[in-house]
Amino acid sequence: MRRTVFFVSDGTAITAETFGHSLLTQFQGIKFREIRLPFVDTEAKAHDSVELINKVAAAGEDKPLVFSTIVNHKVGRELTHAHAHIFDMFATFMEPLERVLGVESSPRIGRAHGMGDSDSYEHRMEATNYALTHDDGISKHLSQAEVILVGVSRSGKTPTCLYLALHYGIKAANYPLTEEDLEQPRLPPFLREHKGKLFGLTIDAERLCRIRETRRPGSRYASARQCRYEVDAAESLLRSEGVTLLSSTGSSVEELASRIILNLGLSASHS
Amino acid sequence: MRRTVFFVSDGTAITAETFGHSLLTQFQGIKFREIRLPFVDTEAKAHDSVELINKVAAAGEDKPLVFSTIVNHKVGRELTHAHAHIFDMFATFMEPLERVLGVESSPRIGRAHGMGDSDSYEHRMEATNYALTHDDGISKHLSQAEVILVGVSRSGKTPTCLYLALHYGIKAANYPLTEEDLEQPRLPPFLREHKGKLFGLTIDAERLCRIRETRRPGSRYASARQCRYEVDAAESLLRSEGVTLLSSTGSSVEELASRIILNLGLSASHS
Repeated sequence: MRRTVFFVSDGTAITAETFGHSLLTQFQGIKFREIRLPFVDTEAKAHDSVELINKVAAAGEDKPLVFSTIVNHKVGRELTHAHAHIFDMFATFMEPLERVLGVESSPRIGRAHGMGDSDSYEHRMEATNYALTHDDGISKHLSQAEVILVGVSRSGKTPTCLYLALHYGIKAANYPLTEEDLEQPRLPPFLREHKGKLFGLTIDAERLCRIRETRRPGSRYASARQCRYEVDAAESLLRSEGVTLLSSTGSSVEELASRIILNLGLSASHS
Repeated sequence: MRRTVFFVSDGTAITAETFGHSLLTQFQGIKFREIRLPFVDTEAKAHDSVELINKVAAAGEDKPLVFSTIVNHKVGRELTHAHAHIFDMFATFMEPLERVLGVESSPRIGRAHGMGDSDSYEHRMEATNYALTHDDGISKHLSQAEVILVGVSRSGKTPTCLYLALHYGIKAANYPLTEEDLEQPRLPPFLREHKGKLFGLTIDAERLCRIRETRRPGSRYASARQCRYEVDAAESLLRSEGVTLLSSTGSSVEELASRIILNLGLSASHS
């Protein structure tokens, strides 16, 4: 079974995609072909989208699905001419939300993923810059950090820091534990002084081995023995310091970031 | 006016947050205090969440809002005991979606932002690594790039590349045009040979000036004259080469990424 799915929006279509994608992940037996139609912000563009959807509808067996988050009523109305099953998040929830809040909405496009609140946007860009300049132990001056991820090389620290920064404007640094660090009974002082911000990131030794092998095939660095030693030593060092350990083996960067935010009670300035 | 809003989910709560946040951006007059409650995946945790929500409800004037994307029915049902207005994305759309698809959903938590399809997740992590190793002109070997962003220093190339990589698994490189490049009549050959993947990123000279000023205060690099010269020269060089120009002045990284994907017709392996 295969269905074509459109994510249509007058903005980036990120909300439409997130909304539709989340629902579709609950249907494992069906293959979905996903097509994004962002920036559909005029009736003319909506008309073009309808033509595209109808072409797919005419060619295929089953009616396409459309997940829509169009803000503008006129543009949204145009879309109802599509030969498709339409799931419209805004149309569905806006009216009850207006009732609950006791005010009418003031429709404006592109608020959810535009620059919106420009302070919070700047904050995210600054945090991203911070993550890059405090990646991989580049800087040991960590007083500005809100989060410091510590773990062996290739345990997944960098993407997690970037995600925290880009999405939530959280200044996240990371430090890779070296063999020298692992031989010490304690973490280095420049980390110990920020214990409240430390998170240990660990990983299955076998998986680490595979990841390192693609980087430096056949090296001691990528050997099963070395990976096992580093993971064990890092876990025991971090545990002895009372640092919260998270694993990147079964968790995505999104899940790790959510756990970290929850743990620290950080507020997220998500745009 | 101020309302407390909860984003509740048995997963990361990213979908709940995106869903609720998009709707709330349409109400500009109201201040919302946003609280994320991720990983509410047992009835006991749902019960704790209800207690927290009810505490807020008891203390405040207006009933809190709850945006929920809980997959598990039993856990979701627990949440209905909260003294709150509940907007439940899954409960609202799952039943009509099952009808349309003619199959029942197979509820499983954490699919939307977990590792889900591990190939696509690996792909995103690889692309992130690629973006980092092909950032800021570090590498001129760009044959593997799917997107190459070109623009003057601090025009917003790096965060846009990271966003494309982290979210969509797109290998995005970037190259900062130097003064030497700007004096040439053509782009450097290692860029020209990949013209189909090139995007120019431009920015208002005044804004660039402000951004550079925070990096190197009082420098020639940050001067109004220098910023104006570089922006003009870069725009005219890129235009003469027929490269699509995007501006980071009024557009967020999310908007830039969406435009680039739309332009290239790249399919997005969003997790």
